[in-house]
Amino acid sequence: VGTNVQLDRNGMEILEPAECFRLVSSEPVGRIGMVADGGLLVLPVTHAVDGESVVFRTGPGAKLAAAANCDEVVFEVDRYDPRSHSGWSVVIRGTAQFVSDPQEAEQLYGLDLFPWVGQGGQAEWVRVVPREVSGRRVPT
Amino acid sequence: VGTNVQLDRNGMEILEPAECFRLVSSEPVGRIGMVADGGLLVLPVTHAVDGESVVFRTGPGAKLAAAANCDEVVFEVDRYDPRSHSGWSVVIRGTAQFVSDPQEAEQLYGLDLFPWVGQGGQAEWVRVVPREVSGRRVPT
Repeated sequence: VGTNVQLDRNGMEILEPAECFRLVSSEPVGRIGMVADGGLLVLPVTHAVDGESVVFRTGPGAKLAAAANCDEVVFEVDRYDPRSHSGWSVVIRGTAQFVSDPQEAEQLYGLDLFPWVGQGGQAEWVRVVPREVSGRRVPT
Repeated sequence: VGTNVQLDRNGMEILEPAECFRLVSSEPVGRIGMVADGGLLVLPVTHAVDGESVVFRTGPGAKLAAAANCDEVVFEVDRYDPRSHSGWSVVIRGTAQFVSDPQEAEQLYGLDLFPWVGQGGQAEWVRVVPREVSGRRVPT
């Protein structure tokens, strides 16, 4: 172990994209950052990994508007253990895309994903298509 | 309980600012959203609540640059229980400010805060001064 570990200038371990996606799928909640309502906004979502993109469900609001506009967004997932002070984070920069194809949406319902607000109001699917995937782990 | 509960259009419970700060201080990790490197960026930090603002430690990089520029940032904290599907989130929009006063920084070291990267490299303090505090809880 550890022979190929690369560290960044802060001494954090740089994670490979495949490891990033594995970690993203290991956590139920991520956060999407976007420009909305005249400023930056970061909101939590429950998500799933579908291939090399991240998907979540949403209803009317800032997240759906970002997807309708194919806006640039950032998706972040992290985990931190306050006892050991160990942790990791993954940051995905990309484009939010509204899933308009009913067949594609139907397939996504097969994923293990319970929407943040509940099953009721969040009927639309949004896909975050990555352009840049970056992950860091606190070395232990 | 519940007589003064206000719901938003998605049926989420709207949290009062005092409750938001209580929740923010109950979690060790939040995320700061900013514009950096030609795009949006969301990064995790371990934080503390100091009065009516949020503080964290950092080293050279995007977060410190945002503070040096007094940039608009957003600070987000959430908690989600995948078994009960209950959760809450708090979003603070405001300004990042570099704590340049050594006395003020000295006092902040008295807070219970262990930096994400470790005690070594994150010597500078940043304060997020809120302009807008918003919190939501999934009704149970």
